[in-house]
Amino acid sequence: MKVLVYNGALNEKHIQEIEEASKKAGVELCFTSSENDIPEGFEDSEVVYGYGMNLVNADKIRGNKNLKWISMISAGIDYALKPGFFANENVIITNSSGSYGVTIAEHIIAVSLMMMRKLTLTYASSLQGEWGSLSMQKSLKDCHITVLGTGDIGTCFAKRVKAFEPAEIIGVSRSGKNQDPVYDKMYSVDQLDEVLPGTELLVMSLPGTTETEGILSRERISLLPEGAYVVNVGRGSAIDYDALMESLNSERLGGAALDVFKVEPLPEDSPLWTTKNILITPHSAGNLTLDYTRDKNVHQFCENLMNYVESKPLQHVVDKVQGY
Amino acid sequence: MKVLVYNGALNEKHIQEIEEASKKAGVELCFTSSENDIPEGFEDSEVVYGYGMNLVNADKIRGNKNLKWISMISAGIDYALKPGFFANENVIITNSSGSYGVTIAEHIIAVSLMMMRKLTLTYASSLQGEWGSLSMQKSLKDCHITVLGTGDIGTCFAKRVKAFEPAEIIGVSRSGKNQDPVYDKMYSVDQLDEVLPGTELLVMSLPGTTETEGILSRERISLLPEGAYVVNVGRGSAIDYDALMESLNSERLGGAALDVFKVEPLPEDSPLWTTKNILITPHSAGNLTLDYTRDKNVHQFCENLMNYVESKPLQHVVDKVQGY
Repeated sequence: MKVLVYNGALNEKHIQEIEEASKKAGVELCFTSSENDIPEGFEDSEVVYGYGMNLVNADKIRGNKNLKWISMISAGIDYALKPGFFANENVIITNSSGSYGVTIAEHIIAVSLMMMRKLTLTYASSLQGEWGSLSMQKSLKDCHITVLGTGDIGTCFAKRVKAFEPAEIIGVSRSGKNQDPVYDKMYSVDQLDEVLPGTELLVMSLPGTTETEGILSRERISLLPEGAYVVNVGRGSAIDYDALMESLNSERLGGAALDVFKVEPLPEDSPLWTTKNILITPHSAGNLTLDYTRDKNVHQFCENLMNYVESKPLQHVVDKVQGY
Repeated sequence: MKVLVYNGALNEKHIQEIEEASKKAGVELCFTSSENDIPEGFEDSEVVYGYGMNLVNADKIRGNKNLKWISMISAGIDYALKPGFFANENVIITNSSGSYGVTIAEHIIAVSLMMMRKLTLTYASSLQGEWGSLSMQKSLKDCHITVLGTGDIGTCFAKRVKAFEPAEIIGVSRSGKNQDPVYDKMYSVDQLDEVLPGTELLVMSLPGTTETEGILSRERISLLPEGAYVVNVGRGSAIDYDALMESLNSERLGGAALDVFKVEPLPEDSPLWTTKNILITPHSAGNLTLDYTRDKNVHQFCENLMNYVESKPLQHVVDKVQGY
């Protein structure tokens, strides 16, 4: 059995861990630095570990009819679910859900506090060499927080923000059935309209699916109370950004921190850049620039490789119908 | 007994709370908007609530020989301890320790994450309409954190940062005896040199006293490991800023977030503005721009007013020898 690894962020320790796992699993292993450098004989590998968004352009990987399992380094894999994306339409796709919760949770808390504490303004002043002026701040303490999407990312955030003593943390998920006690209340997506008017901080950590597309519509944005904050770390498609911009420019909303966009990088001429009280980050909330994320990502693959060769159930298998 | 209140950040609810407390305490109350507007007959008030740094210029308040208790709205009150500052040298000074912990703890977490996650860079890019580039991030998870100054502020921070699963939280205080279980280990200031080499994030929340002046000296800065971060929310006098700038400009340290300075506002020509990997904020970590802080501040005064008229011990009395 041949295993091809393409992960540009591996250090010596990771390579060693993968080599040891492969030896234990009894598979042939090779590393590649790009699709054009795949060593001879590994073009038809049964297993591939690696690839995030760049898989879109990896024709050889996608065209490999012998590919049975692809272990993706990213958490969101919506782009790989289009019909015909893989030559083998029965390929098993696993994602790296579980390795991004910590880093994205830290991002959400950082950008929420930057907005609520007006650090967006004072830091911008300091970059000009100017002592900023003070303005009214908001706090996570006593804040009514709604987490839309209660997977690993949303729940890692909820566990951290709990220590800030918010008024309540409401979780909203597809089924409304997350059992984690960190959520004070759980609602299903069908009940979202009931939850929004009482939400001061809305954190969106949803996968990109047909169900989540446009979920924060113009109507729903108008249900948020004056001064509310929105953080989006899932997919840009989840929000009506035109309506969001209007609510920000009219200062009805307090601010929005956006890490994901319909087109990335965000085009130079996007009106989002100059929208009031916006905090734009370059899809930097969750990626392999954090050691912990890389370590966990590699570790999860190695565990799953043993599951695969022993015909045990794989972890983090993507449900191609649900889309995550 | 006459009570004068000067707090520029009171809302209707606060005024009502103070009026009710005064009625219950049986004291004569008046509010003023500045030292020049003190209503007749209240120049010699026995009790004054209010004043932060602006007390320095409040000659009438300081010169009032009948002043027996001043309840200060700030937490740090070093400036009011100079000999001769008050005409009545026996005046009891209470500070508002306890009302700033929440807001300053949120500041510390925000600026720590901004530095560690390179949000300082990506946000600066976004202000120019540019999609920032990704660079290696650090995490609070598995981080070795030292809290220098384990009073209300340091401990509020420690309780919040605990949820981020750091490797350890070391507390360093004058006595080394803080009993709060949030600290994995406690050291006294005498042992600081042992702690610094293992510190990845150093949070300084110290009062301004002769003992804390220059405590983070050039020698001690050199004891911090490569890539360490420093956050200072106490007093600018605690750090040798020249040595700090050298360590930042040479990129030996990872970054420093400074909210306090020897001279405030920080002069336009200060070399700190253009120091590498610095995050300057305009003494905005703790002040009355947050509702929670104002509410707590007023509430503490009202409680203490009852203590005062009933001759019970006051809370938050400043020890003029220790300086906090």
